[in-house]
Amino acid sequence: MSRPQSPEPALNVQGASSIGLGDEDAADGTQHSHRMLSFSDALLSIIATVMILPVTHTDISPEQEFDKSIQKLLATRIAVYLMTFLIVTVAWAAHTRLFQVVGKIDDTLALLNLACMMTITFLPFTFSLMVTFPDVPLGIFLFCMCVIAIGAVQALIVGYAFHFPHLLNPQIQRSAHRALYKRHILRIIFHGPALCFVAAGFSLFFYPALVTCLSDVELEELPHVLDTRFFSDRRFAHAPSLLVTLPDAQQSYLLMATVIFLPYVSKAASWCRGRLVGPREPPAHSLEFFTFDLHGPLSKERVEAFSDGVYAIVATLLILDICEDNVPDPKDVREKFSGSLVAALSESGPHFLAYFGSFATVGLLWFAHHSLFLHVRKATQPMGLLNTLSLAFVGGLPLAYQQTSAFARQPHDELERVRVSCAIIFFASIFQFAIWTTALLQEGETLQPSARFGGQEHAFMFAKLALYPCASLLAFASTCILTRFSTAIFHLMQIAVPFAFLLLRLLVRLALAILRALPRLALRPAPTRPAPGGPRDDTCSPLLPAPC
Amino acid sequence: MSRPQSPEPALNVQGASSIGLGDEDAADGTQHSHRMLSFSDALLSIIATVMILPVTHTDISPEQEFDKSIQKLLATRIAVYLMTFLIVTVAWAAHTRLFQVVGKIDDTLALLNLACMMTITFLPFTFSLMVTFPDVPLGIFLFCMCVIAIGAVQALIVGYAFHFPHLLNPQIQRSAHRALYKRHILRIIFHGPALCFVAAGFSLFFYPALVTCLSDVELEELPHVLDTRFFSDRRFAHAPSLLVTLPDAQQSYLLMATVIFLPYVSKAASWCRGRLVGPREPPAHSLEFFTFDLHGPLSKERVEAFSDGVYAIVATLLILDICEDNVPDPKDVREKFSGSLVAALSESGPHFLAYFGSFATVGLLWFAHHSLFLHVRKATQPMGLLNTLSLAFVGGLPLAYQQTSAFARQPHDELERVRVSCAIIFFASIFQFAIWTTALLQEGETLQPSARFGGQEHAFMFAKLALYPCASLLAFASTCILTRFSTAIFHLMQIAVPFAFLLLRLLVRLALAILRALPRLALRPAPTRPAPGGPRDDTCSPLLPAPC
Repeated sequence: MSRPQSPEPALNVQGASSIGLGDEDAADGTQHSHRMLSFSDALLSIIATVMILPVTHTDISPEQEFDKSIQKLLATRIAVYLMTFLIVTVAWAAHTRLFQVVGKIDDTLALLNLACMMTITFLPFTFSLMVTFPDVPLGIFLFCMCVIAIGAVQALIVGYAFHFPHLLNPQIQRSAHRALYKRHILRIIFHGPALCFVAAGFSLFFYPALVTCLSDVELEELPHVLDTRFFSDRRFAHAPSLLVTLPDAQQSYLLMATVIFLPYVSKAASWCRGRLVGPREPPAHSLEFFTFDLHGPLSKERVEAFSDGVYAIVATLLILDICEDNVPDPKDVREKFSGSLVAALSESGPHFLAYFGSFATVGLLWFAHHSLFLHVRKATQPMGLLNTLSLAFVGGLPLAYQQTSAFARQPHDELERVRVSCAIIFFASIFQFAIWTTALLQEGETLQPSARFGGQEHAFMFAKLALYPCASLLAFASTCILTRFSTAIFHLMQIAVPFAFLLLRLLVRLALAILRALPRLALRPAPTRPAPGGPRDDTCSPLLPAPC
Repeated sequence: MSRPQSPEPALNVQGASSIGLGDEDAADGTQHSHRMLSFSDALLSIIATVMILPVTHTDISPEQEFDKSIQKLLATRIAVYLMTFLIVTVAWAAHTRLFQVVGKIDDTLALLNLACMMTITFLPFTFSLMVTFPDVPLGIFLFCMCVIAIGAVQALIVGYAFHFPHLLNPQIQRSAHRALYKRHILRIIFHGPALCFVAAGFSLFFYPALVTCLSDVELEELPHVLDTRFFSDRRFAHAPSLLVTLPDAQQSYLLMATVIFLPYVSKAASWCRGRLVGPREPPAHSLEFFTFDLHGPLSKERVEAFSDGVYAIVATLLILDICEDNVPDPKDVREKFSGSLVAALSESGPHFLAYFGSFATVGLLWFAHHSLFLHVRKATQPMGLLNTLSLAFVGGLPLAYQQTSAFARQPHDELERVRVSCAIIFFASIFQFAIWTTALLQEGETLQPSARFGGQEHAFMFAKLALYPCASLLAFASTCILTRFSTAIFHLMQIAVPFAFLLLRLLVRLALAILRALPRLALRPAPTRPAPGGPRDDTCSPLLPAPC
């Protein structure tokens, strides 16, 4: 433990900048940024999903009908959840892009990243405000401030990384057009904040005018005043009826939808143009610039990490509800069940059934996702969008759980609840299926050979991904015919599907055995082509309709 | 898309077993099991942490004193949280060990793993039952059933993997003593379940006797009856006073504590023996057996993934509380604040301050953990235990948040709350510091060269990890002296520490600059030893006391 006194060489050889990067020499940079990115993915996926809780905690008192005023409240809360989910996903995608440019990190970047995360965690609160006070612009204003703050922190990160170029992606680091890159990246980063700046201005200028003229008017009259104002104002007299009839909060939703879908729309437009006109030629002045495509596929690892986070939090939100709500009250047990805890627990039996059913659904959807991405080589942007939509519905599964477990209390609304649950499961799984079909469109680029058309795993993959859409559709259809048994049908589905997943393997094996036995029974000679390595199977394709 | 009809060769060359492993050829096995393990880590870390919510949701009505009956309720809930956390950590460690043996997975193993996870998610519920009904053995019984079920599923996984040896770790796969391995691993897996089987028997035989004799007695008299029964029973008359005075629920806690700490105790005992007597010689009959040490260090990646999950969920549990509780009620806004949302929000300003303070604390503790594990080569078992303890306190941070944000409502209990918060932060950070000191004991094995004594990053690392313990201790001490300003001191600490982290870098740079300037000022010649690669620095060590 005696330390030799030789500060000079260390100071001369490695100056202040080596201290700023001190951690880099202990492990290589990629490993370094890897853990921070996993942590960010976990944080972002939880933030994206957490807003389903106010939806599931919407109390539906037994007196109310399911499809009246409560439906409106539920609808707005669900809208907020979807908005949060999609916005956070956009933030996540921007974060992914950013750290495709910034290859390594140091302490300062890690701290800046934490600041960025802290700002993002504040987003759900602004959405809550927007929903609770649809007439007050403060929610939108705070939201816009948040997005601008996130943009500022990200710009700081980019600035810092370009100031210390060894932190950059090696490809950019070696590039002669680094300044060009920097401008390009900053433009992408300022995309959202700029839109939000407009929105903030809108909420500051347009709303205050309203608020001022409403200062003496009761808040209850707001919708009326709004309408008269719209129609009395000459400029708005011939405005599109959509704009006039929409409440203001929904106009801000429209704006947010723009923020969310703009990159996809522009991408889709350029893709369509590429299909129609042929691929656009890269500008001559910097061919190298476009080899590092910032609009290119997302990092597959980060898509997986984000998805894992969503599945994990959704699965465990359920147990949270169980632990908080289904532990009977000691007083109740003593008074109602004469001290018998078992009797009290069996009262909430359907809840446990619903919990296990939901956990199985989440788990198996994760399993399907996992199997799919095992065969995916890279995730293109349309696949990323479909994955986001699938995850948004997976996040809705606790709602399905709550709907299912509420059966016990209000039997007269069963039908709607079963249908809502089936619909959520259907959409979650059909979007997964859509990822697969989208990947098949460009299979050479996006899929492993074994999963392509004619590949060994192709049919099996197809069956795996088609299982849940078919099962939920079947359950939905049968509730339309056998209305009285809807709950039973739903529970049957939830119990049957896990076995179907296990059976799928057996069915494939069984069918293979039959196929192997058939030629022998027919006494036909074996086919002449031995081709052990070629496009050799399609043996499973007769099994495709099996899961349905 | 035309598929050639040649089923025969595929069937002959690759039989049913190739279907069972179909996914393996698409990606290599390690990548495959990697994602499943990350997902399991995320699930387990969330389950471990989720039980802090009942603790933070303990309503403290303004009439009650903080340190009376509510303290008892809080104490039991905290005990349950800690129990859940530690038990789930044990399950996680067992899972880690298991998948160090099982190197690759297939669909069946993935489904079995999901079943295992589903059983583990049920653990928190059994703990909730235990706390709510300390006198009813059902909770303990269900807990034991869960642990036995987990053991059974894990045994199934081991059995399956040994049935298809290509799934095993390559080292075991090639081993001649595979059967020996299997028995050894199964023994480790059945460790916990066996203990729990005893406990279940205990709860079935010992408790029913009590319950039978109590069937006509009021439940309120239970403690009294218990005492008399203990003392009247001759066998218990001279039992240790500890056993007699403990309530039954606490005896079961004792049992669980045994389950949790047994591996560590046995490890510590063997370690001490190894220090005293010298390392134990491996048995001669299978030297190879002990090269694959099942009690050896945990996988560093999985320790990081589990820790990341805990930090992420703790950070976001906070925003959940904010979104659910701090969105003002529209009716309140209209009546109390005459429609001004800003006024209503500024009412709950301290909550936001506390939220940002807590998020910063969680984020910076993650940052310290991240920096530490960057320099860690492998995580030994004592380091794993210390990490678990640190994480358990990190999980308690939402409690600190709730305590802090409650200041606004009940100013008279400030002092206790500030002290509780300081204590939680102190313990979370001091256990992190302990990981570091433990690692230093075996620095050659556990640390990267730059972080060892005399290494370039050693002093900086020391300062980073010492910052939070010192700050929280300082805050605690100053609340004892300046009782009236305790809240201000606490908030000051929460705001100051993030800046201290940034300042730490500047301080190091500043001191380096001074050190570089000093020899020149003193006009002394440079030291004779240039030694650019050797133990060259200690330049930072004068800075060690800086953060304190």
